[in-house]
Amino acid sequence: MKWHELAEQECSVARSLAVIGDRWTLMIVRDMFLGASRFEEFHRSLGISRTILSERLQLLEKEGVVRRIAYQENPTRYKYRFTAKGLDLHAVMMMIVKWGDTYYSGEKGPPVEYHHKSCGQTFTPVLACSECGEAVTPFETEVRAGANYPGLLPTR
Amino acid sequence: MKWHELAEQECSVARSLAVIGDRWTLMIVRDMFLGASRFEEFHRSLGISRTILSERLQLLEKEGVVRRIAYQENPTRYKYRFTAKGLDLHAVMMMIVKWGDTYYSGEKGPPVEYHHKSCGQTFTPVLACSECGEAVTPFETEVRAGANYPGLLPTR
Repeated sequence: MKWHELAEQECSVARSLAVIGDRWTLMIVRDMFLGASRFEEFHRSLGISRTILSERLQLLEKEGVVRRIAYQENPTRYKYRFTAKGLDLHAVMMMIVKWGDTYYSGEKGPPVEYHHKSCGQTFTPVLACSECGEAVTPFETEVRAGANYPGLLPTR
Repeated sequence: MKWHELAEQECSVARSLAVIGDRWTLMIVRDMFLGASRFEEFHRSLGISRTILSERLQLLEKEGVVRRIAYQENPTRYKYRFTAKGLDLHAVMMMIVKWGDTYYSGEKGPPVEYHHKSCGQTFTPVLACSECGEAVTPFETEVRAGANYPGLLPTR
């Protein structure tokens, strides 16, 4: 399978990864959640080529994850802001952060902490069930074919 | 910045993405959560070259995300199983699924459903606060410097 064919698979993971399954794309998303919005900020933070950065931002815009807003004329310069679809990557990003904090933060501990404004406490994200509100583990999650099931589950 | 330098950044996202920020790696992880465990199963499911697949599995093993278990002698064949670290990618994967289901499942709806065994209901994953148990949105999340803060937050 070629990478661009992933987007055609009837699997939400495959289709998502066709958009965000690129290391630099997710680093741009990280930077945006940390407050960056301008091309030069991403460029300084990530140190990747302007071509790669530009391609990734274009893909994110094309997919409706970010939108460009002109903030200066002559020459026109743009800021990038999340759309609602982009903001919804917050949960993905927080879970990646949690995994990284658990396994890669080393002796010194995680570089940043997350504060939950509503309850006023420093928190770690938990995967919870939309129905009962309890934390969900892989052992309590059963995958079932949905209405649009194309036969993706591998045979055992 | 070169890709391999990401692992050296003092950022949990960067370090995580040095391991899982590869589209095929996350597709292998997806297949494992769907029940696949053997090289041939991944190969059939993903249709990528044996070299790429082999490299990705080796990285996952080296990073302690999966372990190899011999299930046959002459010739020796191996199954891949998640370690505890690998199982902890469940939350990352579920959030990617949720994002994909929301924005890429189309008219027919999501291909698979998730059933929460403990409460007996079909659920969608929610990002909840470890302290108060409530759902967390990006607007309620404040990033603060931790003990190991290296100055990663971009200037605005």
